[in-house]
Amino acid sequence: MSLSEHIADFVVGYTHAEEPSESQTELMHTLKLSLLDWCAVAIAGSSEPVSCIVREQALADAGVEHCSVFGASQKLPMKVAALVNGTLSHALDYDDTHFAHVGHTSVVVFPAVLSIAQAKGSSGRELLDAAFIGSEVACHVGAWLGRSHYQAGFHQTATAGTFGATAAACRLLKLNPLQVRHALGLAATRASGLTSQFGTMSKPYHAGMAASNGVEVALLASRGFTANLDGMECGRGFAETHHAEQENAEPGSALLGGPYVFNAVQHKFHACCHGLHASVEALQYLKDTQGLQASDISSIAVKTNPRWLKVCNVAEPVTALESKFSYKHLCALVFSDYDTSALDTYSEECCRDESLHRIRSLTEVGADDTLPDTASQVFVECANGSVYEAHYDLADILPIRRREQKVLTKACVLLNDQKTAEIWSIINSMDTAIAPDLERLFR
Amino acid sequence: MSLSEHIADFVVGYTHAEEPSESQTELMHTLKLSLLDWCAVAIAGSSEPVSCIVREQALADAGVEHCSVFGASQKLPMKVAALVNGTLSHALDYDDTHFAHVGHTSVVVFPAVLSIAQAKGSSGRELLDAAFIGSEVACHVGAWLGRSHYQAGFHQTATAGTFGATAAACRLLKLNPLQVRHALGLAATRASGLTSQFGTMSKPYHAGMAASNGVEVALLASRGFTANLDGMECGRGFAETHHAEQENAEPGSALLGGPYVFNAVQHKFHACCHGLHASVEALQYLKDTQGLQASDISSIAVKTNPRWLKVCNVAEPVTALESKFSYKHLCALVFSDYDTSALDTYSEECCRDESLHRIRSLTEVGADDTLPDTASQVFVECANGSVYEAHYDLADILPIRRREQKVLTKACVLLNDQKTAEIWSIINSMDTAIAPDLERLFR
Repeated sequence: MSLSEHIADFVVGYTHAEEPSESQTELMHTLKLSLLDWCAVAIAGSSEPVSCIVREQALADAGVEHCSVFGASQKLPMKVAALVNGTLSHALDYDDTHFAHVGHTSVVVFPAVLSIAQAKGSSGRELLDAAFIGSEVACHVGAWLGRSHYQAGFHQTATAGTFGATAAACRLLKLNPLQVRHALGLAATRASGLTSQFGTMSKPYHAGMAASNGVEVALLASRGFTANLDGMECGRGFAETHHAEQENAEPGSALLGGPYVFNAVQHKFHACCHGLHASVEALQYLKDTQGLQASDISSIAVKTNPRWLKVCNVAEPVTALESKFSYKHLCALVFSDYDTSALDTYSEECCRDESLHRIRSLTEVGADDTLPDTASQVFVECANGSVYEAHYDLADILPIRRREQKVLTKACVLLNDQKTAEIWSIINSMDTAIAPDLERLFR
Repeated sequence: MSLSEHIADFVVGYTHAEEPSESQTELMHTLKLSLLDWCAVAIAGSSEPVSCIVREQALADAGVEHCSVFGASQKLPMKVAALVNGTLSHALDYDDTHFAHVGHTSVVVFPAVLSIAQAKGSSGRELLDAAFIGSEVACHVGAWLGRSHYQAGFHQTATAGTFGATAAACRLLKLNPLQVRHALGLAATRASGLTSQFGTMSKPYHAGMAASNGVEVALLASRGFTANLDGMECGRGFAETHHAEQENAEPGSALLGGPYVFNAVQHKFHACCHGLHASVEALQYLKDTQGLQASDISSIAVKTNPRWLKVCNVAEPVTALESKFSYKHLCALVFSDYDTSALDTYSEECCRDESLHRIRSLTEVGADDTLPDTASQVFVECANGSVYEAHYDLADILPIRRREQKVLTKACVLLNDQKTAEIWSIINSMDTAIAPDLERLFR
């Protein structure tokens, strides 16, 4: 069976177990935390310049008032709302990452799912199942396209994301397997997005594009649109033309029945590039357990996967954006008691803080190709001669309660306690909500 | 200077000469014929299944009523109208082709231009200049991406077309050069479209996608959206990631000031694959000049560029679609007095016509790699021993009056005399129309 056949079977055939296993329960809990995390970063990012531009254009075009968007009271058509919410939720680059997907799934899948669920009046169970299906498909397709796809210059968030959003949208629209194949086929010729756009507004827009593409192709397929049924994997199809790895001999065979991979999703607890997070966690651990102060330190060595040295190793950051991509700066922030989870920590003013410059200058960053790209090894030497060492790997999944606590804390920092509690309550009661009040998430 | 810099200069700097040269006048005349031809194929294709599906979805989403679409009285937002009109005008695959572009420019550029011109109240001169700019840019970018791009599996109509539509849209929105660069940069990460979708509804949809992409990125750039300024040509930019040839050392240097290439556009005068047209013209010439009848013929040999043998050499067509891709069938149609310009000539019933099967069986089709893909050599042997030979190359541009006559005849076949005259009159008076009544084109 081909990948698109497996996806079609998964979209149509997946059912949430009446008595889910412990791992299934944890998976659904993780998904809900991702939805909470997504709402928090979307609300926090909804006034960013790119969010305003895309929303204002959408409001100027208007259309049937079916779906809520963050930052406006006027509702918009499904495809349009998905574009707006996808873009603004990725504007801060503070949303979750799935390393096997090689990108961000929530900023693509949730906007598509919420748009259709709100317009069609889906139940909470239908919404959660579609979000799970879309997220899982995005992860599988991202891994199937592989590192070669990313290295060639394609952004999985936009490309693999389109297929994930398509799967989720098809589920909510209750398409049959053949319609799902047509939707995936059309997605194969609609998906796009290049990493050479990183650092510009196009990067968050990629999430909107993918969410919107998924809604668009599913709606067209529901009306009888036909495309190449094997558009993903055929000769000159999406994979072949887009430098895919396609190493997996039978891709997608694990989709229906598992094992599922979405629970490896990584929520961001620091408002900087995800490549820095393992190092920050390792340093924070040493600081907390050894009680280290900035004044104690005589040198820091950070070891990381070589991939990241091209991504987030700005030696002397000056702008807010540059500071989010600097190992040396983050080392200094950790030991100077800055809150690395707060958005306003990343500013020009902070880059000029001379107390940080001393720690920056004491820090060496080096490549270690034995480390996976989710891990870091750090060494801190103190003036008194003590040397401390720590290793952190984001791939070691946190216990679910710890994860919940950290996501809730992050949401409270980005929003406030009351808003966080309100959103978490809506999400937590979704399993049994026949008509969840989705509009309240956006207010 | 880079290609995108040249395009930005062309978009902003092109001015229609007050006393145009003969070649400039002819170029504008050709453009107007393309607009007439586009209206005719759009109206004729506006009830095709793909046209109905895409239009119905658009009408369901609705939005501000700024722009007309074929087949509905309700107007739609700019981006949406471009999607609908682009798709339905390519539904019959009877629109014009530009061989250097390696695809179809009018079905992408005109929908984008008409949408914005109608919404913004542009003058006829502004509309024509923008259409010319967009068509010329689409041709240049298509040639720059080259055969390698097409052979790898990308459809220039969709990809290069997006940049053409972007240029045209930027012109009508009066963007400055930096804004044009941002729009082109965003287009570089938005453009997509694969040839593996040919034979499905996705193919005409590609034209809609490209038109809509162009409008979308230009509108966003007009609001301050930023993208990679060199998104077309930078490392991991559109060209590098999409198997472009990029043979031209200084691409785009001819954009401002010419020589212009759009006038090589080929209008289709037979409702079949463009690969067949040179052979049909050569055979028609022999039939007309030698008075040949089907009963006279003992054999036909058709020589064509090898490229076409993989595209349009169905030996025994059974369906209407297959009959549009068959040298043998077209040879039989010509000598059996079928009207190859009429849409209903291509039918299952016609495929079953036994009188055609005799000529089909007498025809041999062969490759000749000395022939360009615009040319064909045909040999007809008669029962009395006479042998006739003819050569036809579409690249030999027809005199403009002959071209006009043929486009008008085609439009009259597709529409009717009165409607054709009405549309041609609107287009012909556009140069001086301060507020052309564009809505009338769609009624």
